[in-house]
Amino acid sequence: MEPAVAPATPALDVEPAAVLDLLGVLAYGELSAFDRMAADARMAPTVAARAALSGMAAIEMSHYDRLVARISSMGEDPMAAMAPFVETFEVFHARTEPRTWGEALVKAYVGDGLAADFYREVAEFVDVSTRELVFAALADAGNSDFAVREVGLLIAADATAASRLSLWGRRLVGEAISQTQRVAAERDALTRLIVGGAGGLAEIGQLIDRITAKHTKRMTSIGLSN
Amino acid sequence: MEPAVAPATPALDVEPAAVLDLLGVLAYGELSAFDRMAADARMAPTVAARAALSGMAAIEMSHYDRLVARISSMGEDPMAAMAPFVETFEVFHARTEPRTWGEALVKAYVGDGLAADFYREVAEFVDVSTRELVFAALADAGNSDFAVREVGLLIAADATAASRLSLWGRRLVGEAISQTQRVAAERDALTRLIVGGAGGLAEIGQLIDRITAKHTKRMTSIGLSN
Repeated sequence: MEPAVAPATPALDVEPAAVLDLLGVLAYGELSAFDRMAADARMAPTVAARAALSGMAAIEMSHYDRLVARISSMGEDPMAAMAPFVETFEVFHARTEPRTWGEALVKAYVGDGLAADFYREVAEFVDVSTRELVFAALADAGNSDFAVREVGLLIAADATAASRLSLWGRRLVGEAISQTQRVAAERDALTRLIVGGAGGLAEIGQLIDRITAKHTKRMTSIGLSN
Repeated sequence: MEPAVAPATPALDVEPAAVLDLLGVLAYGELSAFDRMAADARMAPTVAARAALSGMAAIEMSHYDRLVARISSMGEDPMAAMAPFVETFEVFHARTEPRTWGEALVKAYVGDGLAADFYREVAEFVDVSTRELVFAALADAGNSDFAVREVGLLIAADATAASRLSLWGRRLVGEAISQTQRVAAERDALTRLIVGGAGGLAEIGQLIDRITAKHTKRMTSIGLSN
């Protein structure tokens, strides 16, 4: 991979529909992440922990605002741009509703990380200003330190927590892949952007390998196995 | 210290415990408002409306962050400062859980407005820098325009909505008064600050009259009766 060098497909070849899809899926992802993190914060064992997850949720809304403003500035309707992705996220969240504080933390950490890695890869294929917006929207909201520390405490207090949360992490990835496939099947322009940008179907495999490697590293850093 | 216009009670007379109580009650109020608005946003009829209420909730967290930072800078523990007020807010919110989108809107609008008016009055009795922080934390998050417009639409679409939501507004005020009385009975320093700042018990009546007048104006502006 050569991120510093020009992307495989020059930005000018990118279909506007694909850029709109990218911004739309990202925007609704932020809104639904806000919603779920805010709800999950209720499971926090302390007011301090609840405030920490609530603060992360609030940051998603500032990203959302920027993405929506960009869609509007393109002369497009942000609601229409998000509409095709609403069900995908609702299904994902319904199938990965955390039942414990540990699950909520791992979901915030792993989910945000996976999404960020994926969108960063895709952003390489679009114009510079869209790319910068996407990178800004994915800026680490400080989830890492907080989640790593809190999950570490849970594992230290309960020896069985690591294996349960590792299983949960695998389930999150499985659902994320399944919803991504669904989007890929339904959104032609976005799929062409990714396949074309990556340099063909074979290269998509490498993109997935890179995302998987980062996920594994993330799980390890939090004391969990992949 | 000499602010532009001297407050009724010079800031130096204010007990530190009262300032800490003021910041603590305000901070937990913001955190619980975030939590409830984020949950209420789920009732929104459209993604756009849901995003609007979610955005307002997110702003409460930025206020929360500033208040907590201030408590920490005083060398105090923000969690300990908020602790005495947790139950009060939880009881208030449990007793005023909106069942409809209209109730959620009126609660966001009326609740925020009432709280802001009350804290602005009390902030007059403390030092300038605390006052400025409180004013900043109460800066209108744009709730007014959105809520006024949305409630207007609801009333236009359903002639019975106005009387139902007017009743709901009165219930919100009743619960707010009842929880305020509870805090007043339990927090001596804060109560002394307010009574002393206002200039005595008789003047408290005028303070309540001012808040009530603003509330009535707010209800009228949203098309509801008090």
